[in-house]
Amino acid sequence: MHEAAVADANRRYYEAFEAADLDAMSALWERSDRAVCTHPGWATLRGWSQVGASFFALFQQPVHTQFLLTRQHTVVAGDVAWLSLDENLLGEQGGVTVATLNIFVRSSGAWAMVCHHASPVHASVC
Amino acid sequence: MHEAAVADANRRYYEAFEAADLDAMSALWERSDRAVCTHPGWATLRGWSQVGASFFALFQQPVHTQFLLTRQHTVVAGDVAWLSLDENLLGEQGGVTVATLNIFVRSSGAWAMVCHHASPVHASVC
Repeated sequence: MHEAAVADANRRYYEAFEAADLDAMSALWERSDRAVCTHPGWATLRGWSQVGASFFALFQQPVHTQFLLTRQHTVVAGDVAWLSLDENLLGEQGGVTVATLNIFVRSSGAWAMVCHHASPVHASVC
Repeated sequence: MHEAAVADANRRYYEAFEAADLDAMSALWERSDRAVCTHPGWATLRGWSQVGASFFALFQQPVHTQFLLTRQHTVVAGDVAWLSLDENLLGEQGGVTVATLNIFVRSSGAWAMVCHHASPVHASVC
């Protein structure tokens, strides 16, 4: 049951990203100092002001990103959950696989994203 | 107090890596199916057999890796903790910064690593 709720929160992250919906993205995150986000190839952003600003900037871009999620595994441990998954980018960025680790925390019954770490897989290394 | 114990477990990860000490690395990890590791540029490895094998392979290489850890932040939530930090590689790989997210779980009073996700920062993006 918890796994399903976490997977649902995770799904909403990608829906918000695909729709470039900053309100939905903001609603999903824990808007705190411990919010942490590492976009592919970026330095780590810490704190909701930095993280939120990055989504604002990304959503201004004309590139439309679509995700096909594979290899998704969810672990729930108390009020913390993490998902390991692959983001397979479709469309203009097609062919790129991004290894991802997302952390959610539960507060007042709702799961909020607190960490997102995404990194491109370089085929030459694998 | 918990933060210090987690930071200590995290320090032992980097000591084991620098010493190429597979026994110490094995002792630190949760040797389970949910162990997850993403080395820089690699696809995600899941399960201790894959993760352990990757350290065995890495530790066979003649490259000596030294880490200078910066921007380290620890969050403890019940029996789960995560650290966000930068690995600054010294020596032959000098000048590379690797954004990292490590997750630890507490079992029988000891903190074990269960996720390690490391990705190179590309200066051009930041």
